[in-house]
Amino acid sequence: MKIPDHVLNRLTLYHFILDNLKEDEINISSTKIAQLLDIDPSQVRKDIKYLNNSGKCRVGYNVKALKISIERLLGFKQVKDAFIVGAGNLGSALAKYTSFKDYGLNILAMFDNDPKKIGTTINGKEVFDFAKLGNLIKRLNVEIAILTVPKEHAQGIASYLAGAGIKYIWNFAPCVLEVPKNVKVWNENLIGSFLQFTNNDEIERNNNDD
Amino acid sequence: MKIPDHVLNRLTLYHFILDNLKEDEINISSTKIAQLLDIDPSQVRKDIKYLNNSGKCRVGYNVKALKISIERLLGFKQVKDAFIVGAGNLGSALAKYTSFKDYGLNILAMFDNDPKKIGTTINGKEVFDFAKLGNLIKRLNVEIAILTVPKEHAQGIASYLAGAGIKYIWNFAPCVLEVPKNVKVWNENLIGSFLQFTNNDEIERNNNDD
Repeated sequence: MKIPDHVLNRLTLYHFILDNLKEDEINISSTKIAQLLDIDPSQVRKDIKYLNNSGKCRVGYNVKALKISIERLLGFKQVKDAFIVGAGNLGSALAKYTSFKDYGLNILAMFDNDPKKIGTTINGKEVFDFAKLGNLIKRLNVEIAILTVPKEHAQGIASYLAGAGIKYIWNFAPCVLEVPKNVKVWNENLIGSFLQFTNNDEIERNNNDD
Repeated sequence: MKIPDHVLNRLTLYHFILDNLKEDEINISSTKIAQLLDIDPSQVRKDIKYLNNSGKCRVGYNVKALKISIERLLGFKQVKDAFIVGAGNLGSALAKYTSFKDYGLNILAMFDNDPKKIGTTINGKEVFDFAKLGNLIKRLNVEIAILTVPKEHAQGIASYLAGAGIKYIWNFAPCVLEVPKNVKVWNENLIGSFLQFTNNDEIERNNNDD
């Protein structure tokens, strides 16, 4: 099945909404979801079709069933282990982001080269010396690295991670990484987000381009 | 002109690449850019058409001209002021993110309710008491708030920000905010990113859906 990135992203937001509803709310309409996200209700209905979850006309979608369908499709229960590389503010913030675990991301440990940070624990995650990174990637069979080091170190560390067996690099540095073909990079492009979001009065955007 | 979000995002990434090139690299091909981002060269050429910047066959694009075209289209020189609301790890990380200024985002100050944080300075940005937020939004005419408070406080603060005159909320909490129609929310959906990125072996994605 082909699920465009935009749809995947929105399904996560729908899950946030469902998760925040009061227990006595049994059903939710596409109009309500659409209104909260400032998008078109037809978009919501189109997205939900990927779940094979049939809402009833007028009644809306059953909240519990819809939540479970999203969880299944997006694999929230298939927990994936990851390391955070860089225990600065951003790495620490991500280590404290408790919601990750609910959505299938399990952060095992952090790595840094600052002697003051090594040996400390952030939200139960120990900060190890960079020197131990290669060994621990192999021993714990970790495939995902969350890269939160400064831009000037990002490429060097990315190459090291690729050599050590990492398959996915979630890159928070504002730079593009050169890695071997078998490694996937996801650029968490904060500057791109900022521009998309604040430019929309000057540049007419097309938010529903899928 | 209609620029889809995906294109805007990629143009920022192209700018990162151009920015990192050595000074003696005069031209760059769409193939080189595409290879670095693991996308199709035709996609790069399509995106660059939005800039009215004509590359020459075989020679590629002039690096300097391409950079300037992207900067102009995306408005990097039109600096926008913002407040960070929440001076925890994530807020601090964003305050330290020096690249923001190069791309037109100027963080003026931060806000928190923790007496230990109030009065401190992070990367030159003072942390003020939440109590001063409404007044300073009006006095400095700030329209953008970067919301980095815990999920459970996000909605309350978002409503307050909307009432105080904020027009754009960049929301980092994993929840959907209800705000008046005149306020735009950009959900920095980290969980959505993670799922888009790591699910791509299980779910066949369509990365070039615009």
